Amino acid sequence: MTSRATAQRLDDADPLAHAREHFELPPGVVYLDGNSLGAMPGGVPGALRRTVQQQWRDHLIKGWTDDGWLAAPMRIGDRVGRLIGAAPGRTVTGDSTSVQVFNAVTTAARLRPDRKVILCDTDGFPTDRYLTLSVARLLGMQVRQAAMGGIGAALDEYGQEVAVVLGSPVDFRTGEVFDIAAITAKAHQAGAVTVWDLCHAAGALPLALEADGVDLAVGCGYKFLCGGPGAPAYIYVAERHRAAADQPLTGWLSHATPFEMAADYRPAEDMSRFRIGAPHVLSLSALDAALDVFDRVTVEDIRAKNIRLGRFFIECFDERLAGRGFDLVTPREDDRRGSQVTLSHPDASRLMDDLAARGVIGDVRPPTLLRFGFNSLYVSYSDIHRAVTVLADLAEPDGSRREPTESARRLLGESHVAQ
Amino acid sequence: MTSRATAQRLDDADPLAHAREHFELPPGVVYLDGNSLGAMPGGVPGALRRTVQQQWRDHLIKGWTDDGWLAAPMRIGDRVGRLIGAAPGRTVTGDSTSVQVFNAVTTAARLRPDRKVILCDTDGFPTDRYLTLSVARLLGMQVRQAAMGGIGAALDEYGQEVAVVLGSPVDFRTGEVFDIAAITAKAHQAGAVTVWDLCHAAGALPLALEADGVDLAVGCGYKFLCGGPGAPAYIYVAERHRAAADQPLTGWLSHATPFEMAADYRPAEDMSRFRIGAPHVLSLSALDAALDVFDRVTVEDIRAKNIRLGRFFIECFDERLAGRGFDLVTPREDDRRGSQVTLSHPDASRLMDDLAARGVIGDVRPPTLLRFGFNSLYVSYSDIHRAVTVLADLAEPDGSRREPTESARRLLGESHVAQ
Repeated sequence: MTSRATAQRLDDADPLAHAREHFELPPGVVYLDGNSLGAMPGGVPGALRRTVQQQWRDHLIKGWTDDGWLAAPMRIGDRVGRLIGAAPGRTVTGDSTSVQVFNAVTTAARLRPDRKVILCDTDGFPTDRYLTLSVARLLGMQVRQAAMGGIGAALDEYGQEVAVVLGSPVDFRTGEVFDIAAITAKAHQAGAVTVWDLCHAAGALPLALEADGVDLAVGCGYKFLCGGPGAPAYIYVAERHRAAADQPLTGWLSHATPFEMAADYRPAEDMSRFRIGAPHVLSLSALDAALDVFDRVTVEDIRAKNIRLGRFFIECFDERLAGRGFDLVTPREDDRRGSQVTLSHPDASRLMDDLAARGVIGDVRPPTLLRFGFNSLYVSYSDIHRAVTVLADLAEPDGSRREPTESARRLLGESHVAQ
Repeated sequence: MTSRATAQRLDDADPLAHAREHFELPPGVVYLDGNSLGAMPGGVPGALRRTVQQQWRDHLIKGWTDDGWLAAPMRIGDRVGRLIGAAPGRTVTGDSTSVQVFNAVTTAARLRPDRKVILCDTDGFPTDRYLTLSVARLLGMQVRQAAMGGIGAALDEYGQEVAVVLGSPVDFRTGEVFDIAAITAKAHQAGAVTVWDLCHAAGALPLALEADGVDLAVGCGYKFLCGGPGAPAYIYVAERHRAAADQPLTGWLSHATPFEMAADYRPAEDMSRFRIGAPHVLSLSALDAALDVFDRVTVEDIRAKNIRLGRFFIECFDERLAGRGFDLVTPREDDRRGSQVTLSHPDASRLMDDLAARGVIGDVRPPTLLRFGFNSLYVSYSDIHRAVTVLADLAEPDGSRREPTESARRLLGESHVAQ
């Protein structure tokens, strides 16, 4: 049922199979870590060559105007915006996700100056919590934390105090998906402003920031968007908040007229208000080239495929890995599962090293999670089949099961471990 | 006296003439805007090709460890540190100057929690003031401003209130140089902490952060360091402050153990504490390659040459431009002049456009300043001669002098206009 031939048949029928041609991948490698760093789109080297050897070298300072470097963060922001359901002019690229989280959470909190609580999910990437604690301290606020699944209950309990809800629509460890629209609506009922961290969703799941009424959002360029290591991040701000948006990182390119170099600060009226300093033009040009791939596909097709890839992985898991020391952590329901499957195993680190030695790349989130991310643009059903086959070979031959360690239990909590 | 033959003789005797071989410049262009964006070092395209096509493409996620991406901000920070007189382990690269200014000023202010004033120079790049105003608001402090030449007097007047002095050792418009050691000592006498913006100094002037007792410093990678458009910035923190340094941008890579992804924030003990998010690896690799050029030269030789280039420019000015509508804004004294010469002229913008059309690239700082920056690594005396010759051709043929506009007078102030 999950034979190599089945995988091949699924690949033959895959309407997105053509997209793999737009990537360069090392031969013999099954790459299932695109939720950490996306693979290299084939257009990137040429784009960088042009930026460096035609623009920088030949045009020098004029590149800022003649080659559009100055406009790039807004132009590329709109390209990302198209993938996340943002209207044009509401997304700008630049800096790192961490910097954008700081800017977004501070700005959001200042939209509700009478409230003193930032509600932050415990399942988001750690940088979100660390920066929220810093913002709260600067603004004299408190941070309350809840699991994503408990955000609604937290809002019921003390919603009237909450200025900002910071959440992630995909749990980076388990791959569980949460409902942006429902949580945003709930936050709005309580009078709070939402900030969404889209790092593990953008480019993999259909997002509809405008339709869902999202207030602010941030995300990175290097996971499913494939913009390269440390690619610039992005920030989205809803139109209704922009005029009042009072962002703390008031770098000169957020000024209404930066080249007048005025003594006084006056923020730009448009989304340039969320620019900070000089954009990292080389890194941006790689992200720009990566986004070309998304012009040839739809996010709906991407999502349809990664749902099927996940389902096929779980079928392979059930047949070959279940009961052999592994637990399935990711939800089985298609619409509750992001573009990844996560397993737990007491020997996660050793197994992942052994997998890598046999050409299957995923990653570990300590202590017990094995993460396998699926970028629909270049991952095939045959890749999934091979990954599970190799993992089955590496598992305990007698099918013995080792219990998760105590620290693993604490980290995961019972609710995360779907059998 | 300032003939083309003189320029050629100076070039023939130039001990740094060899450095130009390490740059690629478009033919027929005299590039005097390296204080805005440095020219492209010849090693950059190959370095980027390796980073993208060998590291990212072939090693994928393993690049973070196997190709040293994760360590790069500290390693490259030390390469910058060598140029600014910083001991190893005290400089880290990343983000933009604007972000680093925010981080540095906030951190510095928290080192003096009992004081409520940030003293900021009015001659620094505008981003410094804009961000200082933001920091002051977040921390409940006040900003006072003084011209760099008046920082000492301001410290005499209300030094006991001052937590932080933020200054620039080179005025980005006039090129005037200020004494880091003296101002730092004066600030310390008053009990204040210094933050220096080195953007227009690093790579052009010898700097001695350790010897001068500097507390914190930041700077950009794309001016004299030639790291490319929007190259990552850097931050320096003196060893004596690091354990107490309480930076606001607490991104996950500033954590003591980022890959444990702990719930609680605990800052790194070493200079990683000033990392923020994922480094922009592609942009960083260009900066890294650019710094190779500095391994072949000394900052002392660079400084000796840019002093002589400036002197030659001023000689040419005296012979051909003085009294023809131009004023020399930059100080004549060698040790008070950075690596640039600035002229004022009522028609600055038109003249600079005409210069560019004839292959001489400088820039304008509105409304009346014509800036010519000299990167000793690739600017020749013949370049200077040609620039002034073309400018003389473009000047009013009758030698008539137009008065500066009222706004120009206000901007410049009398003290800046050296005759």
